[in-house]
Amino acid sequence: MSYQLYYSSGACSMAVHIVLEELGAPTRLMPLRIHDGDTSKPGYLAINPKGRVPALAIPGEAGVLTELPAILTFLAESHDTPALLPPTALQRGRVQEWLAWLAGWMHGTGYGLIWRPHRFSADPDDVPALREQGLKVVAQANQDVTERLAQPGPWALGDQYSVVDPFLLVLFRWGSLVGLDMSEHTAWIEHTRCMLQRPAVNRVLEREEVTIPL
Amino acid sequence: MSYQLYYSSGACSMAVHIVLEELGAPTRLMPLRIHDGDTSKPGYLAINPKGRVPALAIPGEAGVLTELPAILTFLAESHDTPALLPPTALQRGRVQEWLAWLAGWMHGTGYGLIWRPHRFSADPDDVPALREQGLKVVAQANQDVTERLAQPGPWALGDQYSVVDPFLLVLFRWGSLVGLDMSEHTAWIEHTRCMLQRPAVNRVLEREEVTIPL
Repeated sequence: MSYQLYYSSGACSMAVHIVLEELGAPTRLMPLRIHDGDTSKPGYLAINPKGRVPALAIPGEAGVLTELPAILTFLAESHDTPALLPPTALQRGRVQEWLAWLAGWMHGTGYGLIWRPHRFSADPDDVPALREQGLKVVAQANQDVTERLAQPGPWALGDQYSVVDPFLLVLFRWGSLVGLDMSEHTAWIEHTRCMLQRPAVNRVLEREEVTIPL
Repeated sequence: MSYQLYYSSGACSMAVHIVLEELGAPTRLMPLRIHDGDTSKPGYLAINPKGRVPALAIPGEAGVLTELPAILTFLAESHDTPALLPPTALQRGRVQEWLAWLAGWMHGTGYGLIWRPHRFSADPDDVPALREQGLKVVAQANQDVTERLAQPGPWALGDQYSVVDPFLLVLFRWGSLVGLDMSEHTAWIEHTRCMLQRPAVNRVLEREEVTIPL
């Protein structure tokens, strides 16, 4: 009995992959390639009608679990060693605050505008303005992340490593992918260095054939 | 010692207001008017730099808690009577799945495109196409919500009332506000009727001077 993780190399699903690896949870990997349109093909839409990754099949449960914040929270609540959620309701609220903002605003709106402009306007003439706005949103969000990480770290929640941190690693890499200069984001670079010291993180990077530009 | 809820009448903050009322949690209401630009004024930005509602000030905690899914989860975890989160990690994962999709996609992208098109493009010429796409996203999301609610209800999670349901009430009302025909959404209308039988819901509607078109 193992989870099945539907993922695409380097996508936000990599955060789930890292969390599964940290937890040592038995997982069957189900690779898709977003760039080849795999997530829009009928076979995958029958599994996840949203046509996105990540999606997690859970033994005994009808229908995959979707939405990154939901999957990360579910896994951390289901496996308590190592603890990937902090002990108090307030700190867990801060985890959800990070996840909602990173997933909904920074990824959904910022990177969405850059990589999926058709989600926002059916007019192809609008694409340049949408992409430009997406870059502005991401650049500002990068600033905000760095400022937050510059408060006592090294992790998003200070000294408590949590499910937020693997998502931050994915987003750090994306900054360079869209051509933004990440070299001034000192506190985030330091966070990335800490991530790269974790064996589970390195195993996933190797498996997904992803490198982190530092 | 009480919470302080920064909210705007009828905004998604109404879901938090309902949850506070259901829990009987001592709360000082801090009204703002989005339409008068209150959420962008320096006084509020000093409290919540994101310039959005809801924001919750918590006794003893520096900095308001933001992001609807985070506030709802925090409140439900902090007060267990009545239980507004289900008992298992998997069911709570389904709550987070609902919240992430409703807040990130339906509200953030769908209603965002309709009501806040400038978040997506700096070019005023793009506004009609953005609004049209927003209406498409919301119309499809309305369908999806209704289909989910048509599975054994009456609530988002079946027989377990949860923090998802007050948010659905807000979104049902918004459908009519943007001119969509909500009359075919039978299961969602039934959900709304069930919401309107709850005393806490009625107290909040009266206090925010909001009516639900049914």
